[in-house]
Amino acid sequence: MTTGVRRSRMGVEERRQQLIGVALELFAQRSPDEVSIDEIAAAAGISRPLVYHYFPGKLSLYEAALKRASEDLASRFVEPHEGPLGSRLLRVMRRFFDFVDQHGPGFSALMRGGPAVSVGAADTLSHVSTTNALIDSVRQAAYEQILSHLVITDPPARLELVIRSWISLAESTALIWLDGRRIPRAELEVQLVHDFAALTAVSAAYDEEMRALLRPMLGSEPADGPFGDLATRLIALAS
Amino acid sequence: MTTGVRRSRMGVEERRQQLIGVALELFAQRSPDEVSIDEIAAAAGISRPLVYHYFPGKLSLYEAALKRASEDLASRFVEPHEGPLGSRLLRVMRRFFDFVDQHGPGFSALMRGGPAVSVGAADTLSHVSTTNALIDSVRQAAYEQILSHLVITDPPARLELVIRSWISLAESTALIWLDGRRIPRAELEVQLVHDFAALTAVSAAYDEEMRALLRPMLGSEPADGPFGDLATRLIALAS
Repeated sequence: MTTGVRRSRMGVEERRQQLIGVALELFAQRSPDEVSIDEIAAAAGISRPLVYHYFPGKLSLYEAALKRASEDLASRFVEPHEGPLGSRLLRVMRRFFDFVDQHGPGFSALMRGGPAVSVGAADTLSHVSTTNALIDSVRQAAYEQILSHLVITDPPARLELVIRSWISLAESTALIWLDGRRIPRAELEVQLVHDFAALTAVSAAYDEEMRALLRPMLGSEPADGPFGDLATRLIALAS
Repeated sequence: MTTGVRRSRMGVEERRQQLIGVALELFAQRSPDEVSIDEIAAAAGISRPLVYHYFPGKLSLYEAALKRASEDLASRFVEPHEGPLGSRLLRVMRRFFDFVDQHGPGFSALMRGGPAVSVGAADTLSHVSTTNALIDSVRQAAYEQILSHLVITDPPARLELVIRSWISLAESTALIWLDGRRIPRAELEVQLVHDFAALTAVSAAYDEEMRALLRPMLGSEPADGPFGDLATRLIALAS
């Protein structure tokens, strides 16, 4: 963690980025609403008034931290368009759980409506909508990445629903995992890839358009990839 | 809708219940944050000051409406312990979508963090936590109902995760449906029952304890029930 020793040599933008980094480190230990500006100032090695020099209010620092975390998360969804789809999705799930693991309480607080910071009603409301907008932008980034890997530009309503509802399943799986970490995360990373296949298959089982869209996609999956492995196990389970 | 004609004959509790009902009817048309106390007063046929006589602030009326809606929703999860599990879950899904259909914008606003009502920071924050607590209580009611139908009292972590994450899948499926209603709701009611089976099967495919728990349960499902029908279709899809 950078300390105040370098204060005089740090520019405004550099100091802002340092404070955001310090805040995110603290939010990874405890819920953001339990972390005060005094603590952030102390961890950064500067005075409380100086924090307010870089961020006009508590919320502006919190929102800047949330924005950096959102951009970080969205960047982890980017995956080369190479190799089997199941393996691509598994790599993304590993990076997603890296993020969740790394941010812990901050991630939980964010997904439960953002840090509850008491600074005046108008600011609080504006903060709630800023938080919701950032979360939605991350969800939208995930959705668009998946569509691009499926090479589909104009998805029918049923496909959009399967993808968006699976994204929410991934969020809730991560939140439940964080609450006690009672299941190895590697298992859940694979499980979410399988859940995607399963939810897609359910939709395709009842809709011809979904079948036509997904058949070429799944048909090219290798038998030893995550999708192939699941199919083998499910057939064994059914018999 | 009851009008002010009966005002003089209504007791305090009866008037409170009437105002809650009027508020819920308005929230079913437009998002709660777009509905003013003036509109609620007008729809109930009483003056704005009189509304404040029954509810000390805007939030207390909103929270009372939310509480009634939560209890209503939780009550729809109650299903007799008779017949195949898939059919029981399908009946619950129908009642869940009845609720979602009936409350529309109110349900959406609630699931996105409750109505954003500007009344002072402390109240707003208290409202956010009241809203979250009520939503959590409905989720917990759903979780406990499912466990009781599975006749499991001490679920392993993997089963708890499957059930709780499926509940969040049901929420997001309903929210996506509300946004344009582009898929017939009856289809999504069945799909969610199938999703439950699919997510459970994925977990059982990789965990012996889950297999042992679920085998007797699914083994007793009839071939023409929702679970049996899905299995038939998936086998056809795979071949």
